[in-house]
Amino acid sequence: MIDWIAFDADDTLWRNEEYYLEGRAQFFKILSKYDLDHEEIRQFDRFEVDNIQYFGYGAMSFILSMIELAIRITEERIHPGDIQQIIQLGKKMLTHEVVLFQGVGELLEALSPVYPLMLITKGDLFHQQRKFKASGLSGYFKALEVVSEKDPEVYTEILQRYGIRPDRFLMIGNSLRSDILPVLELGGWALHLANHPTWSHEDDPLAESTPDRYLKVESIPGIYGRLLGAGLLQG
Amino acid sequence: MIDWIAFDADDTLWRNEEYYLEGRAQFFKILSKYDLDHEEIRQFDRFEVDNIQYFGYGAMSFILSMIELAIRITEERIHPGDIQQIIQLGKKMLTHEVVLFQGVGELLEALSPVYPLMLITKGDLFHQQRKFKASGLSGYFKALEVVSEKDPEVYTEILQRYGIRPDRFLMIGNSLRSDILPVLELGGWALHLANHPTWSHEDDPLAESTPDRYLKVESIPGIYGRLLGAGLLQG
Repeated sequence: MIDWIAFDADDTLWRNEEYYLEGRAQFFKILSKYDLDHEEIRQFDRFEVDNIQYFGYGAMSFILSMIELAIRITEERIHPGDIQQIIQLGKKMLTHEVVLFQGVGELLEALSPVYPLMLITKGDLFHQQRKFKASGLSGYFKALEVVSEKDPEVYTEILQRYGIRPDRFLMIGNSLRSDILPVLELGGWALHLANHPTWSHEDDPLAESTPDRYLKVESIPGIYGRLLGAGLLQG
Repeated sequence: MIDWIAFDADDTLWRNEEYYLEGRAQFFKILSKYDLDHEEIRQFDRFEVDNIQYFGYGAMSFILSMIELAIRITEERIHPGDIQQIIQLGKKMLTHEVVLFQGVGELLEALSPVYPLMLITKGDLFHQQRKFKASGLSGYFKALEVVSEKDPEVYTEILQRYGIRPDRFLMIGNSLRSDILPVLELGGWALHLANHPTWSHEDDPLAESTPDRYLKVESIPGIYGRLLGAGLLQG
């Protein structure tokens, strides 16, 4: 019933968000000596969003946003040595080891002989390629696509390029907005990994009117059985 | 004799290096008030090279390298307002208008009905995609590939993905190292655009023992005729 399976990477196959949370915590620690208004520090999210138009999504955009915010909210009082510390923080984020979620290796080992697998991930090209190599998983994948956005247009472009029919395509990922909804919109299959620390069960727009092509599991080890149950694998 | 034509983008289809030179000139102007040793400022190239391992090639790496160098060589005396100026400089570089070289539109207009065209460009994913869209040329291309390196391995991966035989592939670009030599090494065709301001005629390792698959022109308007002459286009 399907010809290809694609996976999201960050927070689907390996840990990611916690490095951003840790980076942000370290950043706030650097700023703590400047006796700032707590509300001002909260501007960080706005800064990050504003900077997407210049830098896109990814760790380098995050680093540059931290530097800009630090300069702005300290009213240019921040010590340049602290800015260098922010850059070091960023370099650490860009080179951290890749920690796979439990069961990832076994799942890809089982699926890769059955379907060609593709990784579709959003962010800095160089950083995502580095993580792909460092993950030790690249041998399981037939293709890696690093994209700057995950919307129906981008998925359509990838599917056309590989000659994949949308209704023969399954996307597996943790983000409803990036991995699930656009693929369902195109008529594809989507398996939602609803195990992410930030995931809330109330936040599920598909719970009521679930199309047949929408699958859901709580964690990586549940995926194989769910695919079997949906008739997408031979028993 | 060929099935696909691929083009490099920066300094082949549109102006690029001059924005880096201008950005660097502006950067040195910002630093000029700090009464620095000229030799120290020259460390910039080393900084950029060191940072490729973290940030890859591209404008964001350039911005972060400028910030790091400014902090280092001023011995942390640089004013944070000047660091913000460097970031603004970077944002300007990331959003400048795309200026095509003379004859690019006509060439692509002539070639795109004959061969599928691909753009293969190195740098920040988001930045390169933005330039591709802003160029007004995207309609001529069947594919865009943003890569973090241009070596035989990367070209091989692209060729395999599109099912292109190396000896049926022509790459057109201004850089011997990135666009020409790796493609010739794989057995492909390469057309060298030797019109770049930094190009020196003595610096041509292929001048002596030129394989048949190596073509050379001085400027974009010469390309069509050169392809005709090589038998790659119907007269």
